[in-house]
Amino acid sequence: MSWVDELRWGDDGLLPAIAQDVTTQEILMVAWMNRETLQLTVQEGVAVYWSRSRKKIWRKGEESGHTQRLCELRVDCDKDVILLKVEQVGGIACHTGRRSCFFNKFDNGAWVDSLPVLKAPSEIYTQLPPKAPK
Amino acid sequence: MSWVDELRWGDDGLLPAIAQDVTTQEILMVAWMNRETLQLTVQEGVAVYWSRSRKKIWRKGEESGHTQRLCELRVDCDKDVILLKVEQVGGIACHTGRRSCFFNKFDNGAWVDSLPVLKAPSEIYTQLPPKAPK
Repeated sequence: MSWVDELRWGDDGLLPAIAQDVTTQEILMVAWMNRETLQLTVQEGVAVYWSRSRKKIWRKGEESGHTQRLCELRVDCDKDVILLKVEQVGGIACHTGRRSCFFNKFDNGAWVDSLPVLKAPSEIYTQLPPKAPK
Repeated sequence: MSWVDELRWGDDGLLPAIAQDVTTQEILMVAWMNRETLQLTVQEGVAVYWSRSRKKIWRKGEESGHTQRLCELRVDCDKDVILLKVEQVGGIACHTGRRSCFFNKFDNGAWVDSLPVLKAPSEIYTQLPPKAPK
């Protein structure tokens, strides 16, 4: 059995994939993968996800240049969550221009923006409007 | 609108929740939450998940004693992934007795067990057989 088939893919053929910064250990984002994009990720050495909204292969950074170089690949005990340790090119993982997507921090009953925008989305995306390509 | 309702809950009323060790930044596990268990997590200051397999509230550590003290709570840009930074009591998050569930590391086309079992599951769980309560 292939290492890909050992994973417990969902009914929709997808699994969540966490991207973690290999240096700072910060969690950068969570996206989705299918069998093909996981294999492409290993073959190409960069994170390749499945965009649920666009229903197509999403090479992370294909528009922004903010690719993620694969340093380590792990799965959990149930083999239904993927973990990528990556080098985040450009230091920006989020489509909002922040280094991580997890910028909403709970504080006293509200979600507070806790990370700076490093680059305006209008500067990052010259062709397509900035929206989460999930 | 309540901070809970600001999240984009799935059709099944659930969202994935990542538990990250607040000290080491290691990713410990991924489980699921609904509105109620997220509120309980905040109220009680410990991780409370929704067990998809048992279809009930799962107070992490209720059998093992390996509770997770909530230190920080975040959500991502799409507000559909929850991140808990926790203090892992007992230093063991996984039902297999390892400190993290992400012990399967990809190496040359295979998944290799890369973390030691710190405590045998038979010692951790005295009443119920050890299985992933997802």
